[in-house]
Amino acid sequence: MSEEFDDPWADAPTRNSRQVEDVYELNDESDVETLMRQPMKAASAIDSATIDWLQEDAFERSRQQRLHSIHGVQGLLAQLFDTWRIWFITVMTGVGVGVIGAWLDVLVRWLSDLREGRCEYGIFYNQVACCSGLDPGEDCTQWFSWSKWFGIEAIFVQSLLQASIYNILAIIFSSSAAVLVVVYAPFAFHTGIPEIKAILSGYVFDEFLGPWILLIKSLGLALAVSSGLSLGKEGPLVHVSCCMALFIARLFRNHRPNETQKRRILAAAAAAGISVAFGSPLGGVLFGLEELEHFANDSDIIWRAFVTSVIAAVSLQYIDPFGTSKLVLFQVTNGDETWRAFELVPWFFLSVIGGVLGSLLIKLNVAAAVYRHRSILRDYPVLEVIGATAITGCISYLVVFLRVQTSELVANLFLECDPAKGDYHGLCNPTASVENVFLLILTALVKIGLTAWTFGMMIPAGIFLPTIAIGACIGRAVGLMVQGLHRSYPALWIFSACPPDPSVRCVSPGFYAVIGASAMLGGVTRMTISLVVIMFELTGALSHVLPIMISVMVAKWVGDAFGKEGIYPSWIALRNYPWIPSNEYRDGGETASSILVPFKNLVTLEAEGLTIPQLKQLLKSHDYHGYPVVTREKELIGYVTRASIKTIICQCNPLSIIFCFPLNASVPAAYSSQDSERVYGFVRRNEGPSNNSTNLDQYLEEAAIQLKREVPLELVVNTFQKMNIRYIFFTRHGRLEGLVTKTDIVRLLRSHIPNAGDLEREKSMYQSR
Amino acid sequence: MSEEFDDPWADAPTRNSRQVEDVYELNDESDVETLMRQPMKAASAIDSATIDWLQEDAFERSRQQRLHSIHGVQGLLAQLFDTWRIWFITVMTGVGVGVIGAWLDVLVRWLSDLREGRCEYGIFYNQVACCSGLDPGEDCTQWFSWSKWFGIEAIFVQSLLQASIYNILAIIFSSSAAVLVVVYAPFAFHTGIPEIKAILSGYVFDEFLGPWILLIKSLGLALAVSSGLSLGKEGPLVHVSCCMALFIARLFRNHRPNETQKRRILAAAAAAGISVAFGSPLGGVLFGLEELEHFANDSDIIWRAFVTSVIAAVSLQYIDPFGTSKLVLFQVTNGDETWRAFELVPWFFLSVIGGVLGSLLIKLNVAAAVYRHRSILRDYPVLEVIGATAITGCISYLVVFLRVQTSELVANLFLECDPAKGDYHGLCNPTASVENVFLLILTALVKIGLTAWTFGMMIPAGIFLPTIAIGACIGRAVGLMVQGLHRSYPALWIFSACPPDPSVRCVSPGFYAVIGASAMLGGVTRMTISLVVIMFELTGALSHVLPIMISVMVAKWVGDAFGKEGIYPSWIALRNYPWIPSNEYRDGGETASSILVPFKNLVTLEAEGLTIPQLKQLLKSHDYHGYPVVTREKELIGYVTRASIKTIICQCNPLSIIFCFPLNASVPAAYSSQDSERVYGFVRRNEGPSNNSTNLDQYLEEAAIQLKREVPLELVVNTFQKMNIRYIFFTRHGRLEGLVTKTDIVRLLRSHIPNAGDLEREKSMYQSR
Repeated sequence: MSEEFDDPWADAPTRNSRQVEDVYELNDESDVETLMRQPMKAASAIDSATIDWLQEDAFERSRQQRLHSIHGVQGLLAQLFDTWRIWFITVMTGVGVGVIGAWLDVLVRWLSDLREGRCEYGIFYNQVACCSGLDPGEDCTQWFSWSKWFGIEAIFVQSLLQASIYNILAIIFSSSAAVLVVVYAPFAFHTGIPEIKAILSGYVFDEFLGPWILLIKSLGLALAVSSGLSLGKEGPLVHVSCCMALFIARLFRNHRPNETQKRRILAAAAAAGISVAFGSPLGGVLFGLEELEHFANDSDIIWRAFVTSVIAAVSLQYIDPFGTSKLVLFQVTNGDETWRAFELVPWFFLSVIGGVLGSLLIKLNVAAAVYRHRSILRDYPVLEVIGATAITGCISYLVVFLRVQTSELVANLFLECDPAKGDYHGLCNPTASVENVFLLILTALVKIGLTAWTFGMMIPAGIFLPTIAIGACIGRAVGLMVQGLHRSYPALWIFSACPPDPSVRCVSPGFYAVIGASAMLGGVTRMTISLVVIMFELTGALSHVLPIMISVMVAKWVGDAFGKEGIYPSWIALRNYPWIPSNEYRDGGETASSILVPFKNLVTLEAEGLTIPQLKQLLKSHDYHGYPVVTREKELIGYVTRASIKTIICQCNPLSIIFCFPLNASVPAAYSSQDSERVYGFVRRNEGPSNNSTNLDQYLEEAAIQLKREVPLELVVNTFQKMNIRYIFFTRHGRLEGLVTKTDIVRLLRSHIPNAGDLEREKSMYQSR
Repeated sequence: MSEEFDDPWADAPTRNSRQVEDVYELNDESDVETLMRQPMKAASAIDSATIDWLQEDAFERSRQQRLHSIHGVQGLLAQLFDTWRIWFITVMTGVGVGVIGAWLDVLVRWLSDLREGRCEYGIFYNQVACCSGLDPGEDCTQWFSWSKWFGIEAIFVQSLLQASIYNILAIIFSSSAAVLVVVYAPFAFHTGIPEIKAILSGYVFDEFLGPWILLIKSLGLALAVSSGLSLGKEGPLVHVSCCMALFIARLFRNHRPNETQKRRILAAAAAAGISVAFGSPLGGVLFGLEELEHFANDSDIIWRAFVTSVIAAVSLQYIDPFGTSKLVLFQVTNGDETWRAFELVPWFFLSVIGGVLGSLLIKLNVAAAVYRHRSILRDYPVLEVIGATAITGCISYLVVFLRVQTSELVANLFLECDPAKGDYHGLCNPTASVENVFLLILTALVKIGLTAWTFGMMIPAGIFLPTIAIGACIGRAVGLMVQGLHRSYPALWIFSACPPDPSVRCVSPGFYAVIGASAMLGGVTRMTISLVVIMFELTGALSHVLPIMISVMVAKWVGDAFGKEGIYPSWIALRNYPWIPSNEYRDGGETASSILVPFKNLVTLEAEGLTIPQLKQLLKSHDYHGYPVVTREKELIGYVTRASIKTIICQCNPLSIIFCFPLNASVPAAYSSQDSERVYGFVRRNEGPSNNSTNLDQYLEEAAIQLKREVPLELVVNTFQKMNIRYIFFTRHGRLEGLVTKTDIVRLLRSHIPNAGDLEREKSMYQSR
């Protein structure tokens, strides 16, 4: 592309849009050390900034106008390029996410199998690839367990060796993941969804989505999942997808997307991440709608998310890592069977359990995170991971359902027993029902504890799959109990809807596992409609969509009774990200007066007669994102950002013209070295500039919403939620009475959450303005 | 409930919220006649009003506070009742919609069968009920065609009698529907979705949702569908559901929902309508999200829509009108078969056709509506319906695929041929492929013409099913062509992905019909994600969700190239409802100045010293919804509505206290008959009331957003879209410079649509303010 299209504003929004109210400066050496240890705290310290959507729109508008002002064929091409760039990014993101998803599947499969044995053909084959091409029933002689490979005969030594390699490899995998994360990409830890939520709502946190994060998180994720820790790869895939999207968008050097476009691309990428994680393209779009909220207002974003999700799913299906050429991951076999009304009772029971245990898991997880943060563990993240892996490995090796890969466990819990297909670790043995119920409940309880601890360690970790597994165990257990009851007392009146022939299956424990998983996920994430769609795209149980819906419904109700926040908002509150939940807010009769910062506490600029040293002093002494401009009579003139003031100062230094020019293309043409003391003023446009000052009205922000201080608090919150702005002025008869910023609203909405901000640094910088 | 809970504000919002800018008064007798003939025009004349969401929120807030101020057990009960009332309405709406849906299915089945014959047991049996309990293959001897019933032997007389009864009954059905609609409930005509869209976005149009409409529309719908006209019952079910919801809500006499609550209930009901219409609970919710837009901002509404949809679907499944105990209406048999990459080419072709024909159908339909409105047909709606039925009947009797019920046709077009199940009117005869292709394309073309005319006549009519049928015909035709090609040249390189055995089916024409239907619906409605969900919930073809998505995608792109508006926004524009589309709006550099009504053209109230006669004169001479209040120096004090002015006037007449008291409970306590000339004033609160006037600040609207006139137009549109407000003030240094109302925005966004407002009365009242 010719230089003509180069966009001087391309980077400006980011630079202009730091909200300095949230920035805590690094004071000394020890802070830098803390920074290295605690990446997320560092994040909020380094880069706490939210964009102002109105301002972003203004940038976009001026860019568009510049684009349309180019004449001739070149102009047409530039416009065409501009339109197709975003679609190119959309399509490429979809393909990229599909490829990464498939690659992760293959890698995880191989690493997991490696813990058990190796293939005769070579170490890089997984068990399925090694044993492919066999007739059904034929034994696979090419796959060797480690004890067989080393030719060990004694059964005790066999078991010991097998268990040792199993656990040692697990520790190697997880510690590699932890080292990778701690050393190279601290932001790659955890699920990433809380941060994506905050970013989509306007938080500027570009370091979170760098290309290194993409690489380390994908690799670390595969290692962490293979290590057998109680974590999943579904949530982090959303983070990986977003990194991928931004990586592709950055290929356009001269045409980087602005902050608004970036968020649209990210929203689509997040949807694609879920689409690939669960093989659920619609679920991905709905997840974006419900959980990421940001794009609920814009059908254009929904549409783009839809396209990205489709393409990601098509790519995954095309690559076909499991050789099934199907998107449905955990196929439920009896999709065609109908359910009976009496089953609603155990399902209701399951849903209540899901809601309760989901809340419990959230609370345990938050407590674990806070404890880790305050204890000595904070200083030894890698050791903590190694310890957790060792403990997980030891416990898991004892219980058969804990030992297997979580995804394999879930797949089998969802399946109905079919004598033709064999038994899965005795799960289908009708004589061992009691033992199975005990084992399943034990598995669920252990997994709750392990997951609560694991989700938050310094490795990439998702909470979806462990939660599904916990729910599936409990569901299957309840299903087995009901089935046992039916087998023992087929004549009971509650079973009157069952077919009279007792050999025909009436109760399907596999579907109870699906219900349990839905309820548990509902309790943890508080998702509703997207969860239902994901669950039935995951299992293919279209005819059972109604009970799934009911279970999610009940689980959410029960969970909400123990605390309104799901796992992601809880973590956002812990981290204190500037994120406003979209839930309806009801005040108790308060008005805006109760939270506004009154005029006397505001740092304002006087509209008439400013000198450069005054401006410099202001920037030095007050570290805010911007300043209201008022006349001597307190009349509001407008709002000027810190960045704009810097530009004004810059103009007066002839040497710096070269450096500061790109910041604003419309600086006045004439300069003189006497300007260093030049008098500036923001004056009423209709009254013309006064003699001794230059009019600076062009530096005022265009879109400043004014309200009266008597408006209900509810309306103020609502305006922030819907308009995505950063501040509202409160005026009376034109005179500024006060200001409310996004930070005030965030603090207001977070006031009821315990532990809010606990994982952030102390707010020594928080003082009254 | 005790009188204590009686809500004096219950009706106030509606009364207060008429936006008089849009009201065209009835001038003379002839207008009243026009009114009777043209209900929709009358609608916008009688009841053109939009609610102000901020004001509604204020009402709700004061109601909540009053509720919380009740002490003791009674207060607790009142709050509990308040919470559960809305859930009761939600659940009852779901059940009600399910029952209505099932009842309609049964009625339509019976009436349709009646056109062909009758049952031996009695005239109230439909054919399926009459012939139930037979073994497969056994002939049904209880069902008699009319010719057999009357014992006619001659074949020619048989055919003649059969055809006559078939068409005469059709005319009786359709004309009954038309008479019912024209005489009893003119608002029951058409689909109702455009009006629901407008209502959900804030349009006040309560007459559209009355209990009579509920009855007449359900009955008329059954009659219209059975008459064989080219229309469906799916869209109108949304209208019926909304009527049902409002009917249930109105059972709470003392606790009627306010306008905001009402819209939440309606949004959930609309979702339930689609849920029942297509057996697609998720599709219903997504339809609400995408097409009705209103509730995209509020996860609470999505959640409630979800619950209503589930319950409606459960009710329908429980009643089970078709005896299949399944929600999937048009089961696709080969859901498990995979598709081949080469098929994307014909599917892409189908999608393009869908987009083109969809746009064509919209344009034809709009042209037909405008023609009808301007021609003499406008005066004879019943005759028009009779004529259309006769023509449809005659044409349909000639072509076999037109003659059958549309839903039956679609079900069979979606089915794959299965020798075991028999042939459907020769559709599966491999030797008659060419004839079938010709017949299917002919059917599609005739149906386009008939549908374009029918959708808009004075009967309840939906466009979903005819559109699906048109698309399915074309899709099946293309499928047959591709299948024919494969049969003739199985060795062609494009078929290399097919199984080598030519007897194994490679091309599934039934699925081509699904793709065609999706594309056609995409072209007509421009829905995306909700359409995909509806299509795959409708067909159960979960594994084919990706091609459906792609086809909808392409159809929308192609359709958008011919005009951005789908069928519903087109009708909204025709009717000129106050509805702001949620699409992104980009200005060409204009600012708010370009559309604002400047101060000099505004009718304002002076803040200081108003007398009652002055106020009365104002109300008489200017018919606006409200008036800005300014000081003599043009300083903005606030906004006062017409209703509030009426209250002020009312206070001064001691006799009318009884009547106007409920309008505002906080009127000053002291009155005297000398007050008739009393001086009022809106004065600055912080300066105290001046001596000779009473402070009226309490009558000012709380929430008035102020912007600067230099803000980009885009931002103004965006604020209206997101905040759902009715006006924005433009001030500079506290002085009012102008006003923009919702009407201005609607007019701006509709300026590019041809025929906009053509179906509305002339706007003689539109003058500059």
